Amino acid sequence: MRKVAVVGVAQTKFSGSQEKTEVELFAEAATEAIQASNLKPKDIQAAFVGNVLGDFSEGQGTVQAFAVENIGCFNIPTNRYEGACASASMAVRDAFMWVASGFYDIVLAGGVERAATMGTALATRTFAMFSDSRYEFPSGITFPGVFAMLAHLYAAKYNIPIKKLKEQMAIVSVQSYKYGMHNPRAHLRKEVKVEDVLKSFMVATPLQLHDCCPFSDGAAAVILAPEDVAKKLTNKPVYIIGAGQASSGPLVSQGDYLPRIKARELSSKRAYDMAGVGPKDINLCELHDCFSIASILAAEGMGFFEFGKAGEAWEKGEAAIGGKVAINPSGGLKSKGHPIGATGAGQVYEIVKQLRGEVEPGRLVEGAKIGMTDTLGGDATTVVNMILRKGW
Amino acid sequence: MRKVAVVGVAQTKFSGSQEKTEVELFAEAATEAIQASNLKPKDIQAAFVGNVLGDFSEGQGTVQAFAVENIGCFNIPTNRYEGACASASMAVRDAFMWVASGFYDIVLAGGVERAATMGTALATRTFAMFSDSRYEFPSGITFPGVFAMLAHLYAAKYNIPIKKLKEQMAIVSVQSYKYGMHNPRAHLRKEVKVEDVLKSFMVATPLQLHDCCPFSDGAAAVILAPEDVAKKLTNKPVYIIGAGQASSGPLVSQGDYLPRIKARELSSKRAYDMAGVGPKDINLCELHDCFSIASILAAEGMGFFEFGKAGEAWEKGEAAIGGKVAINPSGGLKSKGHPIGATGAGQVYEIVKQLRGEVEPGRLVEGAKIGMTDTLGGDATTVVNMILRKGW
Repeated sequence: MRKVAVVGVAQTKFSGSQEKTEVELFAEAATEAIQASNLKPKDIQAAFVGNVLGDFSEGQGTVQAFAVENIGCFNIPTNRYEGACASASMAVRDAFMWVASGFYDIVLAGGVERAATMGTALATRTFAMFSDSRYEFPSGITFPGVFAMLAHLYAAKYNIPIKKLKEQMAIVSVQSYKYGMHNPRAHLRKEVKVEDVLKSFMVATPLQLHDCCPFSDGAAAVILAPEDVAKKLTNKPVYIIGAGQASSGPLVSQGDYLPRIKARELSSKRAYDMAGVGPKDINLCELHDCFSIASILAAEGMGFFEFGKAGEAWEKGEAAIGGKVAINPSGGLKSKGHPIGATGAGQVYEIVKQLRGEVEPGRLVEGAKIGMTDTLGGDATTVVNMILRKGW
Repeated sequence: MRKVAVVGVAQTKFSGSQEKTEVELFAEAATEAIQASNLKPKDIQAAFVGNVLGDFSEGQGTVQAFAVENIGCFNIPTNRYEGACASASMAVRDAFMWVASGFYDIVLAGGVERAATMGTALATRTFAMFSDSRYEFPSGITFPGVFAMLAHLYAAKYNIPIKKLKEQMAIVSVQSYKYGMHNPRAHLRKEVKVEDVLKSFMVATPLQLHDCCPFSDGAAAVILAPEDVAKKLTNKPVYIIGAGQASSGPLVSQGDYLPRIKARELSSKRAYDMAGVGPKDINLCELHDCFSIASILAAEGMGFFEFGKAGEAWEKGEAAIGGKVAINPSGGLKSKGHPIGATGAGQVYEIVKQLRGEVEPGRLVEGAKIGMTDTLGGDATTVVNMILRKGW
């Protein structure tokens, strides 16, 4: 297997409802990524695209074929991946394998979504179809409700008073908003304090508005190449040294205690094993904070903090820049935004830019060598983790 | 790259509207494929699933995660592929690469759809979103109209009187119905004569009812393994020796003459080149006859017959069993049926069963050594071709 590097990345601003089509949004990210890689569209040999709601948001299925043709990549193979929020991460992981295997030398991977354009109510209702249609959807629950229940179960398991957990969750959100203030491509850029979180309106108890990420419009793209090609294209190659994925299926498959997502524990282990590193080696991580409680569960599931202790870690600054592991210096889904089928590629974008030292002061993780992504599709349905290392 | 074999295949009966969910339909095919491969669910290391309309037909997105957990394949990576009708072929091709690369030893690939359950009117309208939302969908055209136009353009290009072309197309359909009569897993099993086709109601001139394939419910699954593993599991391994894919994007990207689909010509060339064979070496082909005219275009695009001559070839029996290349001995999409996201895996099922000599008399291609699949997603959007060879 060949070493695979990311040679160029790009991301649109993640935003609320805007006027570009998915084809146009993808073009913005993909074209910039191709240019950043010192390549032309004709150099791209295959393209892998994550997209979840395109059929619903603008009546365009199989968007990848139109998006790729639109940027001048003619008659190449292109796949659409759908694994709920993990879609773009699936796309990047598959692209990684096609390059690692020696079959393709230059592959474009990314994702695009117009979730904000749908409006929160319709997007929430539509996206609920990505929970289990047998046992979850018919109960009337949507994802905020699922994660609210996980918060209660987590609090009970570790004897954390719900008031205390709410404060910890608020700190998670406040940190994300803080970093997002320094990210010009973030969707929600504003200063939010703990008391603002606790005063914001209740979405699904104990989760309040500022515990929940927005639906966003946006696209992100990355270009992958094998080591020898990468070295010709950039003097700052970032290698994908580990990639893991697992699907648990319905949340109920987790057994007696739902908040420990087996798919994440297995996926991150697979990524660590491939990379030959462990949680202590990770300098920064973009993880799937669709809700503030989700950050806590993810950070524990990947092994950054002891189970039941991640909230404390955020309180102590251990999840901040300068702490044990810098979590979501982009602002995360909470502030940077969550264009569902593009989110995983947006995480790779952030890690690569961080490892290259190319992000704004105020959110730069100085000296970072190894970064990790974590994308959760559905509730426990699918997790993809990737580990990237600076290669110069 | 390792040699990759299909070690077991299964397909549900393709049918009209039925009561099983997609998770249940997929289970039927996948479980049978696993058993046919002398494996257990725990042996499956990854699963790749094609599905197009599940969000619409039964309100279940990201169906792959639930489908795979349901059959006892716990916590493995699983992707959903959406490339319109080519979805399952994408899934099989990606699975092929993961095995060829040495990363996984045993992978499940397939597809599932409940297109018939939606009803023809709703499925037609919904599936029209898989044409170009910029230039095609807004015109009000749906796929029958697109292929009707291609038929007129084809007739004009090669100076074939439309009455003559209609007779040739009728012969294409009659042959498919004839073979489908011998296929217990086919959706539409009835004797249809040329005059029946020409008397059937007009869908989009010149295409009549019997020129058009049905929407079907169904699932298909295949198990892939590298040569050494395959030899332990079966004494009849069928190798995937070539796999090509290409996306042209919108139909208008074909340039001045729309019916020659560049994606197909490139995709099949890529498959031939990888396999080291040409059109003359293919004993049988399952090709994408969503409409009778589509059979003619596909057979020419893959190089089986001269451009403008495929209709004559069908008239002379050159596309029949015993002719130059046996086309659609399963009954094809016309008779076997078209469960959109499962169709490509159903084609692989048929080729494998044929090469093993395990199909019913009346449609067996005796002595066949090399078979080919051809799946068209959208109008010109995406084509996937695979070439398989018996390996004993």
